[in-house]
Amino acid sequence: MNYEAFFAAELSKLKDDGRYRIFAELERKAGAFPAAEQFVAEGTRPVTVWCSNDYLGMGQHPKVLDAMHDTLDRCGAGAGGTRNISGTTHSHVVLEAELADLHGKEAALLFTSGYVSNWAALGTLGARIPGCVILSDALNHASMIEGIRHSRAEVHKFTHNSPEDLDRRLSQLDPERPKLVAFESVYSMDGDIAPIAEILDVCEAHGAMSYLDEVHGVGLYGPRGGGVAEREGLMDRVTVIEGTLGKAFGVMGGYIASSAALCDFIRSFASGFIFTTALPPALAAGAAASIRHLKSSHVERARHRDRVAQVRRRLDALGIPTIDNPSHIIPIMVGDAHKCKRISDWLLEHHGIYVQPINYPTVPVGTERLRLTPSPVHTDGDIDRLVTALSEIWSQCELARRALAA
Amino acid sequence: MNYEAFFAAELSKLKDDGRYRIFAELERKAGAFPAAEQFVAEGTRPVTVWCSNDYLGMGQHPKVLDAMHDTLDRCGAGAGGTRNISGTTHSHVVLEAELADLHGKEAALLFTSGYVSNWAALGTLGARIPGCVILSDALNHASMIEGIRHSRAEVHKFTHNSPEDLDRRLSQLDPERPKLVAFESVYSMDGDIAPIAEILDVCEAHGAMSYLDEVHGVGLYGPRGGGVAEREGLMDRVTVIEGTLGKAFGVMGGYIASSAALCDFIRSFASGFIFTTALPPALAAGAAASIRHLKSSHVERARHRDRVAQVRRRLDALGIPTIDNPSHIIPIMVGDAHKCKRISDWLLEHHGIYVQPINYPTVPVGTERLRLTPSPVHTDGDIDRLVTALSEIWSQCELARRALAA
Ligand SMILES: Cc1ncc(COP(=O)(O)O)c(C=O)c1O
Ligand SMILES: Cc1ncc(COP(=O)(O)O)c(C=O)c1O
Repeated sequence: MNYEAFFAAELSKLKDDGRYRIFAELERKAGAFPAAEQFVAEGTRPVTVWCSNDYLGMGQHPKVLDAMHDTLDRCGAGAGGTRNISGTTHSHVVLEAELADLHGKEAALLFTSGYVSNWAALGTLGARIPGCVILSDALNHASMIEGIRHSRAEVHKFTHNSPEDLDRRLSQLDPERPKLVAFESVYSMDGDIAPIAEILDVCEAHGAMSYLDEVHGVGLYGPRGGGVAEREGLMDRVTVIEGTLGKAFGVMGGYIASSAALCDFIRSFASGFIFTTALPPALAAGAAASIRHLKSSHVERARHRDRVAQVRRRLDALGIPTIDNPSHIIPIMVGDAHKCKRISDWLLEHHGIYVQPINYPTVPVGTERLRLTPSPVHTDGDIDRLVTALSEIWSQCELARRALAA
Repeated sequence: MNYEAFFAAELSKLKDDGRYRIFAELERKAGAFPAAEQFVAEGTRPVTVWCSNDYLGMGQHPKVLDAMHDTLDRCGAGAGGTRNISGTTHSHVVLEAELADLHGKEAALLFTSGYVSNWAALGTLGARIPGCVILSDALNHASMIEGIRHSRAEVHKFTHNSPEDLDRRLSQLDPERPKLVAFESVYSMDGDIAPIAEILDVCEAHGAMSYLDEVHGVGLYGPRGGGVAEREGLMDRVTVIEGTLGKAFGVMGGYIASSAALCDFIRSFASGFIFTTALPPALAAGAAASIRHLKSSHVERARHRDRVAQVRRRLDALGIPTIDNPSHIIPIMVGDAHKCKRISDWLLEHHGIYVQPINYPTVPVGTERLRLTPSPVHTDGDIDRLVTALSEIWSQCELARRALAA
C-alpha cells in the first residue's frame, strides 16, 4: 500500500469539500485583548479576535499572570511526573480543593484537559461499572462521545435536550441496571441550554447517575461562576460536574467534581488520568487564581452579558441571521462551507476582524457558521466595526437577511 | 444500584491488595532541584526527589523559565481556543518547526500530552486507513494500547523487543493490507531499549509503517537529543516518531514528527487533536527553548550518563538487586506491593528521600519496584545519602541481595 498517496488523497477530498482547515497563526497581546497580531507571509498585521473561548479575558488578568509567574519561579516549568510518581504538587491539591468548593462537592479531580476529563471519566465509569448503560444527549461533544465509545458500555442516544425522550428510553431499561445520563449545560455551537432540572427529575425517577459537562458554563453563570447548574440551584443534584480550565478561566486543564468516592474511583482506575504527566504547577496556580477571583467578582460576568446583548441587538436590527439562544454564544448562520470561509477571509483581510469559519465535523454540513463570542474586553468601537463590516459583506454578497420586525 | 457503595467496595479491594495509591504532595524548588518540600499534616519537610521524569532538570533551566515568563507577559495565560478556532499561536508554529527539525522530518504536530499524541495518532491511523492491521509490542505503554483499542483496528501483539516474532506475525498477514508496527525505544519501567534497526528491517521487508514512541528517549539520546533513533542514525527510516515535552524537556505536551501528509492527515481527522484547547503559548515557548538548548548543549547528557553510572556502580557493589539495562532508568526490584510501599515510606520519613513505589497496573504484580532516575542535578552527596539509606533498609529488613562478584 502507498500510504503517502492515501493520505494525500484523503486531504484532497477535504479540500474539494471546502473542509480543509487552515489555522490562523496568532499572537494575542496580553493587556490589550481582544487585540492580536496575525502572522502572514509578509510579516504580521493587527487583528481583533472575535471567536476566542477565553470568554472573560481571564487569560490576561493580573492575578492569573502573577500566580503563574510566581509559581514558575518557585517550582519550575513542568510537574516532572505523573500524579502518582512525583507529579502531585501543592498547587494541584489547592486547585482540586478550590474546584470541589466551587461546585459544592466533596472532591474534585484534575485532568490535563476538558477533553481528557470527559474521555477518561466516562470511559472509566462506562467500562468499570458492571452492566452500566449510558444515555447520551444526541448533540454531546466529541470528547464525551469518544469516552463513551471507548468504554464499550451499552449506549442509547436521546433526543437533544428532551427529558421526555430520556424518560421513555430509561423506562425501557431494566430498573436494576446501573445507568448514567451524560449531557451538557451550554451547547457550544448552537448556544442553547439544557433543561437541567427536568433532566435531573428524570434521572432521579430512574435511579440514574447524572454527568453534566459545564465546559461552556463554568466561570460564566451562577453567583460564584459555578455554571448554569449553580445559577439554577441544582449542583447538589448532579452526580458529576465536569469542566475546563481552558475557556472562561483562561488557562488549560479539565476536571470533574463529585463525591469523594467517585473521584477516588476515577483517580484509581482511569488510564487517561494515571499514565500521563501532571499539569505544570504554574497552570494549576493560574487556574486557581482565576477561579478564586471569579467566585467573588461579578463585573466580568455583568459586562459579558452586556456585550453579548449589545452585539445581538445590533445584528438583529440589521437582520443578520443568528441562532436565537439564551447564552453568550452568537452563531451567525451561513450554511455553506466555501461561503463561510470567504466571508471569514474577507473580514480578516479588509477589516482585521478574525472570526474562524466553523464547518464539519464541528457542526453538521449545511449549518456552517461564524461563531461570535463577545467578551468583556470588546469595546463599543470593536462592536461598531464588527457590525458595520458584517453589514457590508452581507449586502455585497447578497446574503440572506432575516425579516425585520416592523 | 447503590453507586457509592460500589465505588467504596472497589476502593477497599485496592487497599487490601496494597495497591491503593497515596500521592506525595510536593513542591519542587526551582534552582535547587532535586530539592523539594513535601506537604504533610504538620507542615512541610525537605525531601530529595529521586523519581522525577524531568530527567535533566530542564524544568528549572533559566532559558526555559525566561521563555515562559516572556511569553506569559506578551501573550497571556492560555491559548483561548482549539487549534482551529483562534488557538494556534506563533509559539505553536515555531515549536512544531523545532520538532520537525529535531527529528529530520517534514513536519510535526503538537498535542496536549504524550498520552494524547499516542492515543489520537494511533487511534486515527488504525481507524481511518481501511483494513489497517496494527502490530503492537507486548509491553507498549497504556496510551498506545488505548489508542489502538480505540481505533478498533485488527491488532496483533508481538513478543516484547522480538523482531523475529514480529517477522513471523507479519508473514502471516495478507501482503496487500496496510500495516503499522508500534513500539517504544526506551521502555520506562524496565529501562530496556528496543532493537530499532532490526525492527525497522522487518517493517521494511513487509511494507509496514513504523511508529516509534521516544517519550523516554528524546532530549537524552543522540547528538542533538533526537532520541535513541537519532543516536543510531535511524530517524529517517521511522515513519512516525512520537515524543513528549513533559519529561526530559521539562514542560508538558506531546507530539508526532513524520511526513507532511501524515501529520496533515492526523491534524485533519484526529478528534483528540481537533476538539480540545491548544497548549498555552508559554508552554510551547518553554518547550521550544528547552529543545533548542539540548540540540547544541551536551553537558546535561554527559553528566546524566555519569550520574546514572555512578548510582548503578554503588548499588551493584552493595548487591542491591536492580534490572540491568543500557538506559538511564534504574529499577530496584522488591517484588511485593506492601514491602515496596514500606521501604518507600521509611526512606521518606527517616532520610527525606522520595522514591515512589511502583505497583500494578504500572508494572505486573510480583515485579513491584523502586524506580530511580538519577539526573545531572543529583550531587555526589545526594548519591551517598541514597546508597547509604538503601543499604541500611536492605540490612534491617533482610531483603535479598545479589551475589557479589568475587
Ligand atoms: C462541550 C465541551 N466539552 C469539552 C471540551 C474540551 O475541553 P478542553 O478544551 O479543556 O479540552 C470542549 C471544547 O474544547 C467542549 O466544547
Ligand atoms: C512510553 C510512554 N509513552 C507516553 C507517555 C505519556 O506521555 P505524557 O506524560 O506526555 O502524557 C508516557 C508517560 O507518561 C510513557 O511512559
